[in-house]
Amino acid sequence: MVQESLYLQHKKLLDSAIAALHKRQFFSPYAEHPKAYSAELDAQGKEAFGRLLNQNFVQLNQDTEHWIGEEVSPLWNYGIGIHYPAVSPSKYIENSQKASKSWKNTTIETRAGILLESLERVKARFFELAYATMHTTGQSFMMAFQASGPHAADRALEAVALGVQELRRYPQQVAFSKPLGSHSLEVQKIWKPIPKGIGLVIGCSTFPTWNTVPGLYANLICGNTTIIKPHPKSILAIAIFAAELRKVIREQGLDSNVVQLASDTIADPITKKLAEHPAVKLVDYTGGSFFGNFIESLEKTVFTEKSGINSVIIDSVDDMKTVAQNIAFSVCLYSRQMCTAPQNVFIPQEVRTSTGVLTFKQVAAHIVEAINGVVHHPKMGSETIGAIQNDATLRRIKEVQGDLLLAPQVVHHNQYPNARSQSPTVVSVDAQSVAYRSEYFGPILFLVKTENTIESVAVASVLTSTHGAITCLAFSQDEEVQKFIAEQMNEVFVPVSFNMTGAGFVNQHAAFSDFHGTGGNPAGNASFADVSFVNRRFVWVGNRKME
Amino acid sequence: MVQESLYLQHKKLLDSAIAALHKRQFFSPYAEHPKAYSAELDAQGKEAFGRLLNQNFVQLNQDTEHWIGEEVSPLWNYGIGIHYPAVSPSKYIENSQKASKSWKNTTIETRAGILLESLERVKARFFELAYATMHTTGQSFMMAFQASGPHAADRALEAVALGVQELRRYPQQVAFSKPLGSHSLEVQKIWKPIPKGIGLVIGCSTFPTWNTVPGLYANLICGNTTIIKPHPKSILAIAIFAAELRKVIREQGLDSNVVQLASDTIADPITKKLAEHPAVKLVDYTGGSFFGNFIESLEKTVFTEKSGINSVIIDSVDDMKTVAQNIAFSVCLYSRQMCTAPQNVFIPQEVRTSTGVLTFKQVAAHIVEAINGVVHHPKMGSETIGAIQNDATLRRIKEVQGDLLLAPQVVHHNQYPNARSQSPTVVSVDAQSVAYRSEYFGPILFLVKTENTIESVAVASVLTSTHGAITCLAFSQDEEVQKFIAEQMNEVFVPVSFNMTGAGFVNQHAAFSDFHGTGGNPAGNASFADVSFVNRRFVWVGNRKME
Repeated sequence: MVQESLYLQHKKLLDSAIAALHKRQFFSPYAEHPKAYSAELDAQGKEAFGRLLNQNFVQLNQDTEHWIGEEVSPLWNYGIGIHYPAVSPSKYIENSQKASKSWKNTTIETRAGILLESLERVKARFFELAYATMHTTGQSFMMAFQASGPHAADRALEAVALGVQELRRYPQQVAFSKPLGSHSLEVQKIWKPIPKGIGLVIGCSTFPTWNTVPGLYANLICGNTTIIKPHPKSILAIAIFAAELRKVIREQGLDSNVVQLASDTIADPITKKLAEHPAVKLVDYTGGSFFGNFIESLEKTVFTEKSGINSVIIDSVDDMKTVAQNIAFSVCLYSRQMCTAPQNVFIPQEVRTSTGVLTFKQVAAHIVEAINGVVHHPKMGSETIGAIQNDATLRRIKEVQGDLLLAPQVVHHNQYPNARSQSPTVVSVDAQSVAYRSEYFGPILFLVKTENTIESVAVASVLTSTHGAITCLAFSQDEEVQKFIAEQMNEVFVPVSFNMTGAGFVNQHAAFSDFHGTGGNPAGNASFADVSFVNRRFVWVGNRKME
Repeated sequence: MVQESLYLQHKKLLDSAIAALHKRQFFSPYAEHPKAYSAELDAQGKEAFGRLLNQNFVQLNQDTEHWIGEEVSPLWNYGIGIHYPAVSPSKYIENSQKASKSWKNTTIETRAGILLESLERVKARFFELAYATMHTTGQSFMMAFQASGPHAADRALEAVALGVQELRRYPQQVAFSKPLGSHSLEVQKIWKPIPKGIGLVIGCSTFPTWNTVPGLYANLICGNTTIIKPHPKSILAIAIFAAELRKVIREQGLDSNVVQLASDTIADPITKKLAEHPAVKLVDYTGGSFFGNFIESLEKTVFTEKSGINSVIIDSVDDMKTVAQNIAFSVCLYSRQMCTAPQNVFIPQEVRTSTGVLTFKQVAAHIVEAINGVVHHPKMGSETIGAIQNDATLRRIKEVQGDLLLAPQVVHHNQYPNARSQSPTVVSVDAQSVAYRSEYFGPILFLVKTENTIESVAVASVLTSTHGAITCLAFSQDEEVQKFIAEQMNEVFVPVSFNMTGAGFVNQHAAFSDFHGTGGNPAGNASFADVSFVNRRFVWVGNRKME
């Protein structure tokens, strides 16, 4: 079969990926530092992105009833003018059902070959993808390149590898023999993983590919056709993935509607219609909790990543300056528009350091200074904070209550003078305050004054179990205290990162090594990528046969 | 640690069980045919059961506010007079939370040792368990012995083996090293499977251990303390499991409230209160769909086996007599009070056999004759059909509409003259009838007249996707037709058993080889035991540490 040749072409990478799944070590085959690529590739990517502007995005080669698009570059502060094909929700479903007839009958190897080939094709467009991401999300070049390109591709590969491993868990056929005294019962047993049906993957505005491709590739490897519903303000990056997938599928003689991009507009959303359609059996969702809770209430197989409140717990440190720099970078990076970024820093009245005890005020001063250091860094400042994806984020921050320690400032981008940028606001609050007890997405940091670490952990734990959290960063020089923090926070199903300094940041969740989300608290019900992330997408049936 | 010694004692069995998980071959370490046991053991078991009658069941050694019990033997037709300890729902929760503190911190090996030791202890009580099951469910001796004893223990072992395998999936600790050009990022990563919390396992009246122990042992191996809520009319058999579990846990110096039996009465049920309690995070349920749907609507991790309508599809056969005998036995066995028993037999106008074509009427006559053969078999008749667990089952059957082919008859039990027994009612209906399109649990069989196999499959498929099904039995001599049936029925997530004759019956689902339920249609959302059956009971967290 011609389709198997793609599998053989990518078999080595797939096998390495499967082997890497259990080791939880560094494995990032698509991650090459952009500097390793030539300036020529960068220029080509930028040019390719430029050619897409103000055009219809025709490379999807999809059914089209009308063209829509309303993306605005947070860096340019004007629309990028790209329009995407759109049809009615029922037409997407109809196409998907039709495509399903062949896709579900392909072999695991055929699907794996196609999916890995699509990642190869996307790899050739990493620079274009970076610019597409920058001008829809406001991310800096470096983050846009890494998150939307190699790191997303790594996550997609992880989902494929996990899928292949689980789909191969049982032998396809077994001659079952049960001894019955004088004779035996002989039955042929045939095991099949049956895909659940149509999958819907709902993207978010800030990480249009990184959060979308795990569910997309997990669905596809398990034999489920998939409709991608991107955020209307952040379509382009995932459209590039979808286009490459559709091309490879078509080249292999299959119906390219195995994957469809279903774009919509803020004024005329189609997400609910698609999610509620009875033919849609699987829903992957990244976004706010309000809509996420609706998605979870559907009687379907759903995978969610919703909002949460991430905590930093400072107990004791070696050097406060280094710690403050680490926290500052995690907070400044893309202006806290990452679901892994800390919102609240719990600081007790006294913090032990190797050079003496610091008060809350002194610790706060260190953090403020470090944030100022990042923001005002002439070369890296605006690169680190990037731009704000949408205005609502800034509006919410204005409502924040607390003692202002650092006022928001407009940050000048050298390259993009019109960029919607603002440095983090820092406020201090008492532990009793309610101000920090809801989620604020964007450039805001709460420094919360507590009696001691026990109170810090108690409040962080309650917030995690009620509002969810994806990360927890903790600093302690005391092994017993570390143990206490780990136990208490793990109880509410959030992992703890201890004493991060230097190049280690709480925001980083590497494919193949870190789980992203645990699925155990209100921040979401799924994890990139535990085994349930693929196993829940298909059903084992075991036929039996006597002759 | 003293607790590890139990692990070492049972390690060999556990390792074999883990190895057996993927092979899907015959593996049944607890299944020894009762004849292999001595008559002495049988007598001892009967005596032990006799001693329990009309007494308080003290061996649970549980907190007691009052004693309750209202079980009635379907064989004797009077109450067995055993009373069980009961406390308020909130007290069970409180006890469970307290016991959780130590249980969740035990090692996987400690828990595995305790659980396998409890199965050893139960094994010594298999005969007692058989009589306990007979006199609460109405099962015959042979079925009660097999289902409640060895086959249930095999299923419990399967859950433990699967749990151990999945809990050990990742290394406990990894030195993670990410190359960063001139230097590298070094992080210690620590992986922990964190139990979700308190589990509630809700039993059914007909298979009080077989359907209960998978969830129970799966919860326990994953570190979740568990409350068993048996059906008020079928407590004794699972009480024996609970008593042995509690004894072993206590002997190991742990809080025996890791497992509690929460008995209730029909008049004063506590299931809803327990299921809705916020501390209960996991619910396993076997029973009717109405309550099952309520359980599935809870925002918890739930595993259900509800009701369904199982089909037989007759296309063509070698020898109709053999086929009729196979169907008849599957229908008569425990009077169709098994969730795997067929309800509807789809028969086309013409059925090819090796000796010519038979009409619907002729096929129906074969089946009726075969059922009569089983029912009136002097030695095996009453043994096969057993007794009816409760009166409501018989009342429902009286409402059935259709052309009566075989009237119900009271069947005389040699040993139990007062047994509540009734032979299967057989009716024939047209495919257009609605009579057979809802679930009838108990001794009733519908022969459904269809145009052809295509219609048979179409109707069976629709019934499966709307009402659920756990099994499908099909007879065809044509490979293409077999392929068609398998594809159509697998699409609605039900496995097909082809051409069962002799000692092979559709009702049989062997641990380690067959999945019981697929989780893909309305008959339930879980499967005994796919990997999700254990993986959804705990959460992976990955702590990270830099020094």
